[in-house]
Amino acid sequence: MTGLNELRSPLSFLQSRLHDIPHRDMLDTEERWWKSEGVAVSHAIDRAGTPWLRMFDRLGKRVDEILYPREYQTILKRGYRSGVVWRALEEKSLIPTYLLMYDISFHDPGICCPYTVSLGSAVPLAKYGSAELQAHFLPQLLRKDDSVWQGATWMTEIKGGSDLGAAVETIARPAGDSWLLTGDKYFASNANAKLAVVAARPEGAAAGVRGLSLFLVPRYRNDGELNYFIRRLKDKIATRSVPTGEIELRSSEGYLLGSADSGIYLILEVLNLSRVANSVVSVALAQRAIADALSYAEHRNAFGKPILDHPLLRHQFENRLNALRSAFALAWDSVQLLNEVWMERAPYSDRYHLFRLVAHLAKYWTAEFAVDTTKWAMEVHGGLGVLAEYGAERWLREAMILAIWEGTSHRQMLDGLEVMERKQAHKLLFRRLSEIAPSKELQDMESEVEQHLKLPPEQREELAEPLFRRLAALTAETLVRKLK
Amino acid sequence: MTGLNELRSPLSFLQSRLHDIPHRDMLDTEERWWKSEGVAVSHAIDRAGTPWLRMFDRLGKRVDEILYPREYQTILKRGYRSGVVWRALEEKSLIPTYLLMYDISFHDPGICCPYTVSLGSAVPLAKYGSAELQAHFLPQLLRKDDSVWQGATWMTEIKGGSDLGAAVETIARPAGDSWLLTGDKYFASNANAKLAVVAARPEGAAAGVRGLSLFLVPRYRNDGELNYFIRRLKDKIATRSVPTGEIELRSSEGYLLGSADSGIYLILEVLNLSRVANSVVSVALAQRAIADALSYAEHRNAFGKPILDHPLLRHQFENRLNALRSAFALAWDSVQLLNEVWMERAPYSDRYHLFRLVAHLAKYWTAEFAVDTTKWAMEVHGGLGVLAEYGAERWLREAMILAIWEGTSHRQMLDGLEVMERKQAHKLLFRRLSEIAPSKELQDMESEVEQHLKLPPEQREELAEPLFRRLAALTAETLVRKLK
Amino acid sequence: MTGLNELRSPLSFLQSRLHDIPHRDMLDTEERWWKSEGVAVSHAIDRAGTPWLRMFDRLGKRVDEILYPREYQTILKRGYRSGVVWRALEEKSLIPTYLLMYDISFHDPGICCPYTVSLGSAVPLAKYGSAELQAHFLPQLLRKDDSVWQGATWMTEIKGGSDLGAAVETIARPAGDSWLLTGDKYFASNANAKLAVVAARPEGAAAGVRGLSLFLVPRYRNDGELNYFIRRLKDKIATRSVPTGEIELRSSEGYLLGSADSGIYLILEVLNLSRVANSVVSVALAQRAIADALSYAEHRNAFGKPILDHPLLRHQFENRLNALRSAFALAWDSVQLLNEVWMERAPYSDRYHLFRLVAHLAKYWTAEFAVDTTKWAMEVHGGLGVLAEYGAERWLREAMILAIWEGTSHRQMLDGLEVMERKQAHKLLFRRLSEIAPSKELQDMESEVEQHLKLPPEQREELAEPLFRRLAALTAETLVRKLK
Amino acid sequence: MTGLNELRSPLSFLQSRLHDIPHRDMLDTEERWWKSEGVAVSHAIDRAGTPWLRMFDRLGKRVDEILYPREYQTILKRGYRSGVVWRALEEKSLIPTYLLMYDISFHDPGICCPYTVSLGSAVPLAKYGSAELQAHFLPQLLRKDDSVWQGATWMTEIKGGSDLGAAVETIARPAGDSWLLTGDKYFASNANAKLAVVAARPEGAAAGVRGLSLFLVPRYRNDGELNYFIRRLKDKIATRSVPTGEIELRSSEGYLLGSADSGIYLILEVLNLSRVANSVVSVALAQRAIADALSYAEHRNAFGKPILDHPLLRHQFENRLNALRSAFALAWDSVQLLNEVWMERAPYSDRYHLFRLVAHLAKYWTAEFAVDTTKWAMEVHGGLGVLAEYGAERWLREAMILAIWEGTSHRQMLDGLEVMERKQAHKLLFRRLSEIAPSKELQDMESEVEQHLKLPPEQREELAEPLFRRLAALTAETLVRKLK
Repeated sequence: MTGLNELRSPLSFLQSRLHDIPHRDMLDTEERWWKSEGVAVSHAIDRAGTPWLRMFDRLGKRVDEILYPREYQTILKRGYRSGVVWRALEEKSLIPTYLLMYDISFHDPGICCPYTVSLGSAVPLAKYGSAELQAHFLPQLLRKDDSVWQGATWMTEIKGGSDLGAAVETIARPAGDSWLLTGDKYFASNANAKLAVVAARPEGAAAGVRGLSLFLVPRYRNDGELNYFIRRLKDKIATRSVPTGEIELRSSEGYLLGSADSGIYLILEVLNLSRVANSVVSVALAQRAIADALSYAEHRNAFGKPILDHPLLRHQFENRLNALRSAFALAWDSVQLLNEVWMERAPYSDRYHLFRLVAHLAKYWTAEFAVDTTKWAMEVHGGLGVLAEYGAERWLREAMILAIWEGTSHRQMLDGLEVMERKQAHKLLFRRLSEIAPSKELQDMESEVEQHLKLPPEQREELAEPLFRRLAALTAETLVRKLK
Repeated sequence: MTGLNELRSPLSFLQSRLHDIPHRDMLDTEERWWKSEGVAVSHAIDRAGTPWLRMFDRLGKRVDEILYPREYQTILKRGYRSGVVWRALEEKSLIPTYLLMYDISFHDPGICCPYTVSLGSAVPLAKYGSAELQAHFLPQLLRKDDSVWQGATWMTEIKGGSDLGAAVETIARPAGDSWLLTGDKYFASNANAKLAVVAARPEGAAAGVRGLSLFLVPRYRNDGELNYFIRRLKDKIATRSVPTGEIELRSSEGYLLGSADSGIYLILEVLNLSRVANSVVSVALAQRAIADALSYAEHRNAFGKPILDHPLLRHQFENRLNALRSAFALAWDSVQLLNEVWMERAPYSDRYHLFRLVAHLAKYWTAEFAVDTTKWAMEVHGGLGVLAEYGAERWLREAMILAIWEGTSHRQMLDGLEVMERKQAHKLLFRRLSEIAPSKELQDMESEVEQHLKLPPEQREELAEPLFRRLAALTAETLVRKLK
Repeated sequence: MTGLNELRSPLSFLQSRLHDIPHRDMLDTEERWWKSEGVAVSHAIDRAGTPWLRMFDRLGKRVDEILYPREYQTILKRGYRSGVVWRALEEKSLIPTYLLMYDISFHDPGICCPYTVSLGSAVPLAKYGSAELQAHFLPQLLRKDDSVWQGATWMTEIKGGSDLGAAVETIARPAGDSWLLTGDKYFASNANAKLAVVAARPEGAAAGVRGLSLFLVPRYRNDGELNYFIRRLKDKIATRSVPTGEIELRSSEGYLLGSADSGIYLILEVLNLSRVANSVVSVALAQRAIADALSYAEHRNAFGKPILDHPLLRHQFENRLNALRSAFALAWDSVQLLNEVWMERAPYSDRYHLFRLVAHLAKYWTAEFAVDTTKWAMEVHGGLGVLAEYGAERWLREAMILAIWEGTSHRQMLDGLEVMERKQAHKLLFRRLSEIAPSKELQDMESEVEQHLKLPPEQREELAEPLFRRLAALTAETLVRKLK
Repeated sequence: MTGLNELRSPLSFLQSRLHDIPHRDMLDTEERWWKSEGVAVSHAIDRAGTPWLRMFDRLGKRVDEILYPREYQTILKRGYRSGVVWRALEEKSLIPTYLLMYDISFHDPGICCPYTVSLGSAVPLAKYGSAELQAHFLPQLLRKDDSVWQGATWMTEIKGGSDLGAAVETIARPAGDSWLLTGDKYFASNANAKLAVVAARPEGAAAGVRGLSLFLVPRYRNDGELNYFIRRLKDKIATRSVPTGEIELRSSEGYLLGSADSGIYLILEVLNLSRVANSVVSVALAQRAIADALSYAEHRNAFGKPILDHPLLRHQFENRLNALRSAFALAWDSVQLLNEVWMERAPYSDRYHLFRLVAHLAKYWTAEFAVDTTKWAMEVHGGLGVLAEYGAERWLREAMILAIWEGTSHRQMLDGLEVMERKQAHKLLFRRLSEIAPSKELQDMESEVEQHLKLPPEQREELAEPLFRRLAALTAETLVRKLK
């Protein structure tokens, strides 16, 4: 099966899927660098585990410095220079960003988290920030050299990440042109970012999500002092190339983005960017796991021949490749739809609602696929699969984070149901799919969805899983035909 | 759903499944101890990671001492005292052993590995050892106090674990009454055992599995010196309560078990014990993951109520409980069948072949279930699921080892196919299942299996996976009715 | 040299030094337990490094639980049961406490830190606490079973430990019968104590040490919530059997001990207890290092004989033994003097001032001796000395902490100078020493001290080191004659 | 005291000591790079601890790869490029080498170990290797780019490092033009070197040191397979920038250097190079510790002023600077003498014997000084000194290794005695010192040494320590005048 060869590199797989790849040279350079340098650094960072946090310098001044291996900066800064953030705003297209993310996350799935949250800071600033705010902060986020600022998107608090309306207890108090924020953020990726967008509730605002606003919070106050504190870094099982910490906001200076009562829209728009990134990274990670398993299976012998030549295993490889193509088609559809709607503001178009449904399906389906595939790839390695030394086990750890971040499968199902019920997004979806390849199966599925939406709410939710699974599978399998 | 309560403890689940539980008091005591003491120790050992290996004492004498936290001995020795090994031989029944294993592995899935390999040393010694060998070594393995010896079963070498015929390069040379073994064992669990059963090839014996013999190798030579060396301990992702190492046999004294040309039978009989243990432990681990998720979901709130009360999640819990019952039924059937045949010697009865098929189905099905369930349980914990601090991620690591040890799913499928093809074991299985609950589904499945076995060999293997999956599912779902 | 044998156990050394050892049986039992059990636990804890701090439970409640190996509790609680704290107050003597500390710290020098700070909490409570406070808290600190509470003494803040007058910024605000304390403690040993004595400045009090007060701060508030927070545990190079953390006091409930304006006296009285403990532990640690070196040197051969039989090394062992005896004599003198004065309150007697001088000399001299001896013991082990595996390097790490805690040598010298200058404590010392063994050397030294005290302040301080070193040496060498 | 400023950089200190510094530009460049890049890498490597050893690749092939952080190569290769090895042989002078080592080891004391052992491989090859051997291997060791080979010097076995005559059990068997070596090396620095010089005993050779020969052993056999194996890496407390391992030679191909019966001379000549390196590194490390303490003391306040302005501490800094200058003078004298004699072969000149005595004095004195100074520097940092986070404790760990490697103080004293007794090296020394600054003190010391050498052997050794200490001090204090 010649197709297996396209598994070996992210670009060759992208090439097989997409007809037109912008900035092909840049991506080529990127991939070469990763193979020769980046991969070894990435493994060293994973082995090193959670980095140290130096809270105070020798003289007792609070500094909250994260003691990464120095070479971490090398791999991190490279992506920024290549344009994972600045290209989006300069070229007014997310395509280069997500292509770069696919390419990079094949080699290090965690590093795309900093990029995503930096993008998730730059975009709302560019969309909703006042001219003055933009002048003050946007250029730093878009620098093309190593002095670039990193962003961060801090929403989640200790009470939970799904029900933001109830969980966000951070309070913002007006203070002249700016605000002072006080509260604790519990899962704060890129904990040492120079600039973060932060969900908080203005003092006196309504309860629930409607009372949330989005603020820009720089690392240093106007007087040069630390503006927020890192309580500690989390001991995550993977994505060690992003420092995730707990953040203490203590009368931290912040700047309102958009209007105070539209925060929840801004927050969800930020999540769109990261949910799509999660899908892209999931597929790239799955490809990586299959690629590693392939190179192992070609060279490992049992019963007189390479294990790749055993019919059962070879069949599984072929199935994985097909499934990878479907998963990619679904993820890439969410990229393309987002690229159409990312500059929309509420009230949104139908296209935006279609995007939301596809994004939920893609996030769910690709993360499940990444977990299942990385598990399988470990098994291909046999006993070596469970040894820390050989790297196969790392991909499952990375995949599990992708399955949980940006909303677990439960969340995608329930939010997917909601956008179907309230915005009739499934109708838009089935129309889109029928244009690609009309089929009896699609018609049946559409009827089934319609029936399901008529169920009493309790039951609708209870039985959502098999429906959503089949809908995701069918969507992926239909979309893949478009890419062929 | 009242059934959820039985998830909270291994004994209450066993009670709901089995009508008659021997040694109930002992199991009760065991469980109380684990809750009050053992669980904390088990977590501390997992956090501590791979233990140190002290190869030399201060004076330069090779000692190969494993520097475990001292309390490790506490949990380890407890199970031996309770009878996880001695009861099997004294009571001539494996039931107490596997009940104990279920009970214990709910709390620490790794610790059953030492027990299994100790059992796997005692049984062949008792079955095949000369009277003199038994007198010399068996009593130490069956002691009821903390001076008990641990056993080990070392088969795998660097070239692989599945194709033993090609991979075992350890050579045994006759030396009077005993033999001298030289070679390297690559995955050697319980690396510091006092006594191991070791697969080796007598000098000049045939190639392939037919030339293998099984030897008893004590830790110390007759002259008191180390008889084998631990090259290093493996950095496994889990089961840290068993030290797995690489073993160097260097003219190590060994004693032949059985006849030199029957080694492969003895080896497979040892694997029977551990494969069944793997199934039992997998189910207990799955129960543990669900139990932890349950206690979390009861207390964690989102959208105004405990997340357990959200219909989708509650439905998933109910499905998990049902699947747990089925998986247990399948695993327990393999226990009961093994209990009938474990003292057989080649040539074997039909009952033995039936056991082999059920054991393959059970190993495959329960390990897959454990992986899938522990992944799901991580997701129930949301972001906490990926933090090393909270333990939810540990269960997935443990499960992945169960999915790989004792043969990955590939291996179970291929060996299952073989016993169906060569011994017609599926006929025995369907007869057994029909007695429990005859159904059209069973008849269809039997025909399908028959058709499959008629395929050309290449294709038979290539397409084995979906067939084997459905066969396992149907077997489990049928057997569960018996336990109701 | 027969004396070397007394090095092998702390009790045999104590026996050789002291004519009367109370509770000898208890100490014997203690030592036996440590040899058979405790030593292995202590090494395992050292290997495990800094323990984890679990700040939040799974449900997001702040708990600040320190995840020690469970067996840590075993060794910790044992000392409390044996009476390292309760005996002092029940028997109205510190002798049993410091004997126990000597005995225990031979095996684990760090564990005496929790004991010392627990004592340092119980004593001021018993001396200065109101009847109500005592009734409320003292019994818990004096329990003779494993439910005993641990204490802690938290003075140091980020700006430094020596100049408390400037460094303590924690503020106490009156709140009815109690106070509310807010501030950060930077080196907080026994970070999870149930009760701490804490230096703070009542709002509006004077600057400098005169404005400090001492408060009792329990771990839990009256309403059951955490009363203080552990920001993090420190990665110390040794004494891993005591968790040292940074503490955040945030309106933490506290109870004033003594009068608000006498805090500095109470603080210094607490330091007396720990400074003397530091001396006792230093000597015990030095003995341990020599004992380990001895057992190595007896068995390690070079040039045809045990290295102990090489004249240079044997001579060094003999010198070390002599120096150990002197150091012990000095440390024990500080114990005996403290035992006479520990219940005094300001204004203090001459005896108290004599004690202070001896305590400074002893703290300085014994810690220097411990460092120098542990370094030498590493060298005796040759290359093994620098390997983490063999434990020899641990003693130097432990010793370095003793050299720094409770005031570095600088601090002892300067405070020693002060008590000589302001209280003429040297006159009391020379009188005491002359009674033991009058000599020309003592007379010369006394004149020299007198001359030194007449120097201009700048020069007096600048040249303090050689004077103080010789004074300490002479004092130790004189006192050792008393014990012969 | 203006002199304190010269402490801040290794080059400014060298400049203050030496009138003529060759390759000053290169050293400047080196120092700038270390300040801007290297220091951070060095700390990261120290934090990372012992690196992983990957013994087998995924396919089961033994590879013995050391998994260092990738950036380790950056700092390592830099020194080779700058000429720490090639300059010595190209410029026929050791001065550039030891200047570079001083400069580099101020920043990372461990990295000079690889350089030293590489030099220690190149020099005997260049002196004693056949033309063919030199042609085959020397160019790789002298490459000026990153493809340079590293060397190693493996002498010590498990039985000890001092008494090589008894401890070396590695056997060399002739095999045509080459030899096959079998044995275990216990402290093998630069365990992954491409080429090592190895002490072994040709089969049938005499017992004791006279039977030793020196062999060149490449990493790969002629057929491309591994020629030696790394059993494991040692968990050293410091010098983590050099991987020290245990080496298994198993019929490893080796090439004889010099004649078979002159091995001990070659071995001792190799030790000369590393003993002098040890002295140079010790002084640089001491300077580093003082420099760090200085920058701390300038900025840390207590009692109203920087602690550097407290008279006692300032006085200590001045004393340390003076002692540093003396220690450097002694170390540098050993460099200059070695530079005169390093190409000599046995029988040696008087100059060589003088060198040996000075080298023993320097190794002893500078290592003691490094330990004492790093301990003191920790104390200057107060509590921070014992925290892993701040680096002060690292210098003591590094110093302890210097005190033990290349022979502990015992060894230097005894070997120093021997060269005085057998070669009258003290007479040469006193003549040299008198030329610098004749004094009564020197005359007295010379008489004292003469008297000592007349003592009975047992007593001569027993009382060696104080004599040797005073001789080293006096030598250092005299030599320092030469550099003023």
